[in-house]
Amino acid sequence: MNFFEDFAVGRVFRHATPRTLTTGDAAAYIALTGARHVVHCAEPVAKALGHRACPLDDFLVFNVAFGKTVPDISYNAIANLGYADVRFTAPVYAGDTLACESSVIGLKQNSNGRSGVVYVKSVARNQDGHAVLSWIRWVMVARGAEGAAPATKVPPLPAEVPAASLAVPQFLRAQALSTEATGGSRQWDDYAPGEVIDHPGRMVVEEADHMAATRLYQNPARVHFDANNDFGKRLVYGGHVISVCRALSHDGLENAFAVVAIHGGSHANPTFGGDTLACRHVVAAREELPGRRDVGVLRLRMLGVKDEPLARLPAVAPGEKHPAVVLDLDYSVLIPRRQ
Amino acid sequence: MNFFEDFAVGRVFRHATPRTLTTGDAAAYIALTGARHVVHCAEPVAKALGHRACPLDDFLVFNVAFGKTVPDISYNAIANLGYADVRFTAPVYAGDTLACESSVIGLKQNSNGRSGVVYVKSVARNQDGHAVLSWIRWVMVARGAEGAAPATKVPPLPAEVPAASLAVPQFLRAQALSTEATGGSRQWDDYAPGEVIDHPGRMVVEEADHMAATRLYQNPARVHFDANNDFGKRLVYGGHVISVCRALSHDGLENAFAVVAIHGGSHANPTFGGDTLACRHVVAAREELPGRRDVGVLRLRMLGVKDEPLARLPAVAPGEKHPAVVLDLDYSVLIPRRQ
Amino acid sequence: MNFFEDFAVGRVFRHATPRTLTTGDAAAYIALTGARHVVHCAEPVAKALGHRACPLDDFLVFNVAFGKTVPDISYNAIANLGYADVRFTAPVYAGDTLACESSVIGLKQNSNGRSGVVYVKSVARNQDGHAVLSWIRWVMVARGAEGAAPATKVPPLPAEVPAASLAVPQFLRAQALSTEATGGSRQWDDYAPGEVIDHPGRMVVEEADHMAATRLYQNPARVHFDANNDFGKRLVYGGHVISVCRALSHDGLENAFAVVAIHGGSHANPTFGGDTLACRHVVAAREELPGRRDVGVLRLRMLGVKDEPLARLPAVAPGEKHPAVVLDLDYSVLIPRRQ
Repeated sequence: MNFFEDFAVGRVFRHATPRTLTTGDAAAYIALTGARHVVHCAEPVAKALGHRACPLDDFLVFNVAFGKTVPDISYNAIANLGYADVRFTAPVYAGDTLACESSVIGLKQNSNGRSGVVYVKSVARNQDGHAVLSWIRWVMVARGAEGAAPATKVPPLPAEVPAASLAVPQFLRAQALSTEATGGSRQWDDYAPGEVIDHPGRMVVEEADHMAATRLYQNPARVHFDANNDFGKRLVYGGHVISVCRALSHDGLENAFAVVAIHGGSHANPTFGGDTLACRHVVAAREELPGRRDVGVLRLRMLGVKDEPLARLPAVAPGEKHPAVVLDLDYSVLIPRRQ
Repeated sequence: MNFFEDFAVGRVFRHATPRTLTTGDAAAYIALTGARHVVHCAEPVAKALGHRACPLDDFLVFNVAFGKTVPDISYNAIANLGYADVRFTAPVYAGDTLACESSVIGLKQNSNGRSGVVYVKSVARNQDGHAVLSWIRWVMVARGAEGAAPATKVPPLPAEVPAASLAVPQFLRAQALSTEATGGSRQWDDYAPGEVIDHPGRMVVEEADHMAATRLYQNPARVHFDANNDFGKRLVYGGHVISVCRALSHDGLENAFAVVAIHGGSHANPTFGGDTLACRHVVAAREELPGRRDVGVLRLRMLGVKDEPLARLPAVAPGEKHPAVVLDLDYSVLIPRRQ
Repeated sequence: MNFFEDFAVGRVFRHATPRTLTTGDAAAYIALTGARHVVHCAEPVAKALGHRACPLDDFLVFNVAFGKTVPDISYNAIANLGYADVRFTAPVYAGDTLACESSVIGLKQNSNGRSGVVYVKSVARNQDGHAVLSWIRWVMVARGAEGAAPATKVPPLPAEVPAASLAVPQFLRAQALSTEATGGSRQWDDYAPGEVIDHPGRMVVEEADHMAATRLYQNPARVHFDANNDFGKRLVYGGHVISVCRALSHDGLENAFAVVAIHGGSHANPTFGGDTLACRHVVAAREELPGRRDVGVLRLRMLGVKDEPLARLPAVAPGEKHPAVVLDLDYSVLIPRRQ
């Protein structure tokens, strides 16, 4: 539970409480988010693609890994400012144990001297030491005591994870993904850059839902559990908003079977218990993967929208803020290509 | 997400997102419903009966199977009108994968021309292609566009699943069900037709509970998650009401270890978050099974009652509506016989 | 569902619905409580200590075992008065089945003749018949009918479980507990009797949370699910308060890897949905274990505190009541010793 002055560039944190994920976590994740992407919940479908079992939902993995970093990095964070270079590098299965570490890669004290921005690069590894997820994030952290500002270092923040560098499993047989099993017929070829998809579902977020999800991820940040904060109420953990939006987006992105990268994103407005979430996607780009004709990449912009009917939401330009938009995520998914 | 005009008699839907059920789902089901029937939660008891492991709770199976049909059949349904000929034909175990399909067996456009009734027969099969559950239901579905009415076809709707046609596993050793393990001493012989059982428990349904249960079943019908509907609030999924009533009925029907058929039923009034549910059973009949002296069938009428103390609820005649009755289900269970 | 007159000293109850616990229950427990003690959630850490898999959280075991006794002992209890001699005697793993029995060891009718205190000794055994947990509790139970008072017998209630009699597994390699994995550096030697630890987290208890937890434990006591009682609202099950406090206490007691005994305790005030819980520990004693230099015992006093910032809570003397204190538990944990 560090303050700004406790961070130094190069400091490494081996985060506590590694976690063995189980089919119990997968079931709880479905109950808490409504996730339906079939590769994560139907073993025969997963095996047809070459997996040895159902891989756990990518955002379950992300949220558990993220949660591990909170006690050291962001327990007392004022704000989670951004993500970059998030790479999903290997599937995680029930029975795998995740352990995480983070390195401080940048520091910048705010001019008021009372807080500063900490940049960390984190990695989650499985029990074999294999990286399954890596990411950069930066957070604003309060100073605990007065003192000299550290040398400012702002690290390079990649604007994207290039498609050519994405980790796509060699074993993957993307063509085996049955559109009957996914419930959607649209493949990589059928999405056009600029296309807007307003997903039909909407979901009220209950206090009990977001707290249970955040506890499932063992993320102990107080602001999610205790109303004694600047909002005067509990703040919904941003990763829960991402998970709910991913779940809502099933209907319209049925074949987007794996998340492979997050290029950047922000929790543009707070979400609170009682808010009703909806999700819009904008197709940013369609990209090929080197050496593969069976599967391509869709680069997507996920907008999490609260309380506003999507039909009334105008186009929101990249970088633009809209009061109803709580999540603006730039990420990429794998999706089969037409043969 | 079909409208009335998208259905045609004979059309077959192979529903998306098959689901591998796990012990995680079984645990979530217990947490969300309070289920306590022991064959589903104590492996030694299940094995004594001849099962290879704990069979999953019958209504967990029912609700997951039902949920699979929603996107194609009832995503935009105005009302779920009824069930018939529901047969539980084989146990489902953790690790089994359910896939569902439905055939349209009847259509009847309403005289206002804006909606119609769709009759479907659905079946859920496990990974071996073996049917584990089949059912008929009919729903009122809106028209999406004007057009000619299809030919009316109202299929035969069996008034009951005859006891002689029930699927009782050959391997079943019903006499091995220990009344010490179930906590109840009453067996088939001890229930008399006409007997009324007012179960002692009551349970408030929280919004978070019914939404989590409905998400666990991957049932995405909007009315359960979004208050933007004719009720102005979220409607509790009827299957959750059934599950809660089945759980409440443990105390009084401890030895009713398996649900084998639903003859019919209706969600007679809506249930909303904050309602307090209680359950009354009326014993309709005691039936023998051909060739078996060890186990018999109780045909039961399950009344789900909201907010009204059972002691104040009058007798409700079959077919009669009472404002406190939210569920009126005609179904059959297996229960050991005295030797 | 017995009344006071149904109990007799020496009567034995073999409680119904034994339960096979699974990794699903472990995941649900984490989601409902926020438990983070690493031996229960990271298999490599558990195996390093000599376990064959992650042992289930001690209070998950306690709450499930306790729940089994409710239908026979305390379904209609007026109050749960106290615990004594609670011993955690063997680890429980996913796949184990717990069955419980209780013996009546004391009775004392209240002078008003309308209720009485029932003392029971309970034990939970696994599928091999091995005791994993035993405990004494006493509850106030209403009379159902008038009648003569039974002979008063108040059993001896041990003030503590002596450290020398604690069950510490032979196989346990406590020194293998990595402080990197637990996230805390403090060991047995570093805690001083009298030390006060105000744990940093706080958690609002939602109605949906405590009901789901209580259902997970298959504890059907009505007062937790139905507002129709003397409080006019649902009472949070005391075992949920214990579990939440144990989870909150992770930060400050990271290496306290196992609960071995509860010497006594009381639910000093009721907890209701919407209350915000915090946890204070007071170190009561540091005790050695015969024949072991690797691991010691901390005897702790756990105070569960509602709605009051810990910084404002005065010292509460043992036996003293404070309106904000809802839980006052005297218990012991295992923790590695410095070499």
